[in-house]
Amino acid sequence: MSAGARVFSWPLRVYWEDTDAGGIVFYANYLKFFERSRTEWLRSLGIEQQRLRESTGGIFVVAETSIRYHRSARLDDELIVTASLVEAGRASMIISQQALLKTEQPPGQPAPLLCEGSIRIGWVDAASLQPRRIPASILDSLKTDTATT
Amino acid sequence: MSAGARVFSWPLRVYWEDTDAGGIVFYANYLKFFERSRTEWLRSLGIEQQRLRESTGGIFVVAETSIRYHRSARLDDELIVTASLVEAGRASMIISQQALLKTEQPPGQPAPLLCEGSIRIGWVDAASLQPRRIPASILDSLKTDTATT
Amino acid sequence: MSAGARVFSWPLRVYWEDTDAGGIVFYANYLKFFERSRTEWLRSLGIEQQRLRESTGGIFVVAETSIRYHRSARLDDELIVTASLVEAGRASMIISQQALLKTEQPPGQPAPLLCEGSIRIGWVDAASLQPRRIPASILDSLKTDTATT
Amino acid sequence: MSAGARVFSWPLRVYWEDTDAGGIVFYANYLKFFERSRTEWLRSLGIEQQRLRESTGGIFVVAETSIRYHRSARLDDELIVTASLVEAGRASMIISQQALLKTEQPPGQPAPLLCEGSIRIGWVDAASLQPRRIPASILDSLKTDTATT
Repeated sequence: MSAGARVFSWPLRVYWEDTDAGGIVFYANYLKFFERSRTEWLRSLGIEQQRLRESTGGIFVVAETSIRYHRSARLDDELIVTASLVEAGRASMIISQQALLKTEQPPGQPAPLLCEGSIRIGWVDAASLQPRRIPASILDSLKTDTATT
Repeated sequence: MSAGARVFSWPLRVYWEDTDAGGIVFYANYLKFFERSRTEWLRSLGIEQQRLRESTGGIFVVAETSIRYHRSARLDDELIVTASLVEAGRASMIISQQALLKTEQPPGQPAPLLCEGSIRIGWVDAASLQPRRIPASILDSLKTDTATT
Repeated sequence: MSAGARVFSWPLRVYWEDTDAGGIVFYANYLKFFERSRTEWLRSLGIEQQRLRESTGGIFVVAETSIRYHRSARLDDELIVTASLVEAGRASMIISQQALLKTEQPPGQPAPLLCEGSIRIGWVDAASLQPRRIPASILDSLKTDTATT
Repeated sequence: MSAGARVFSWPLRVYWEDTDAGGIVFYANYLKFFERSRTEWLRSLGIEQQRLRESTGGIFVVAETSIRYHRSARLDDELIVTASLVEAGRASMIISQQALLKTEQPPGQPAPLLCEGSIRIGWVDAASLQPRRIPASILDSLKTDTATT
């Protein structure tokens, strides 16, 4: 499950809470931005995490992150944060993500890349935190998403 | 400048980053939610804080907060966060704010109140952090907002 | 249970994570600093919150905060954060707190006050979040602390 | 500058602010823990970042992070966070870091590994955010540290 994955996009705005004394977005906060985009991507596929936890007893946990920072964003900037499935296995999946700066670009010109990375996510039992297989309903939703795009 | 102030509303969603081990939104994060709403309220009046800083050398700072917590919000909940000007003086202003839980209410029933408070905000020189008078352009925008509603 | 309460002090350092684009500590983060001090104050009385939750099923929740900001702290600053019991009732308690800037003062001169406030804390059932009476063991520890100082 | 680097250790405690609704430390917060350890490691070498900024006009920025999560930490846990220089070039350096759970281990048994990663850090002009050479005084301090251990 990999080729031709849809790229999901989520807009967000930089607030004071996101910045640090360098005058820019604090780098750790891009992990939060990436997660907001992943969450909304899952929601767009009908996957609500709180409901899933109640019905299956499982939750997603982040197992690995790898991020490269290219440019800085500042207060009041608008960002576009993407999420795109790279690989979905039985116990974990890999999502590729980018944060782009929304600017008034001439048509055809790409938005500047702020940072990018890949996130590996596992599925665990919420009580024991032991790894479990990702529920079939989730994998089905992901497959359908990939297939139709 | 007080009576009949417009109540501005800003929607937002609860993500993992907002919660704590109690399973609910970490109380300090409502200050972030309140600020997002105030920022968007100011933006709706044409006041962009980053641009203002560049043109005037000044920034808003929070001088006082007073918050009462009534109910908890959880992962995936949708919130409505309000902002409403209570008072605007030469050097500071007071904003009244609420966080409400967006639910599928029967018509006419109010959204449950999560927390509410008032925030006093001052205007300072960004370099020295010394208090300054709030720029007239800001006060004018606030007055117009109050007058037209 | 009020007069002559011991003032507990907890030192901490300002890191990049604590600051915002104003170059100073983000105001909402003082709530975190206050909580670290309260937590260590409770720990100094033998009260461990995670263990308490496992043994009693209850947790503390913040019910009300009231904070006044006087001065700003910057990256690398050392702070002293105090906690002092003002009042302990059956269902909630009020703690008075200050954040002070640690400086090389001449002897006898007080540390500059950054911010101060009072926090009301309730005790709830962790599952239902319904208010409960504060466990007697906690009230006993608090009383002993007050009595011996 | 690589082999035999000293491993610096910094202790810290998990507070409510660090956790999420999974009942564990929110994964993005390990980046904060890593930075606290790096900051204190630099401070132990005489490198104070706020002072450096004032004297050189430069600041460190994170350019790349790569983290693997192995185990979870919970409220009240004590962690040991290490920092160890892997490589220092003209414009950036790589630091290897681990977060370990402090437990009452039998002698000789290692502390459980929570997460580990490597962080690449660059040096930029604070105003323009353009890359600059790391000041010689910093490289000298790092070299001395490596040499003496």
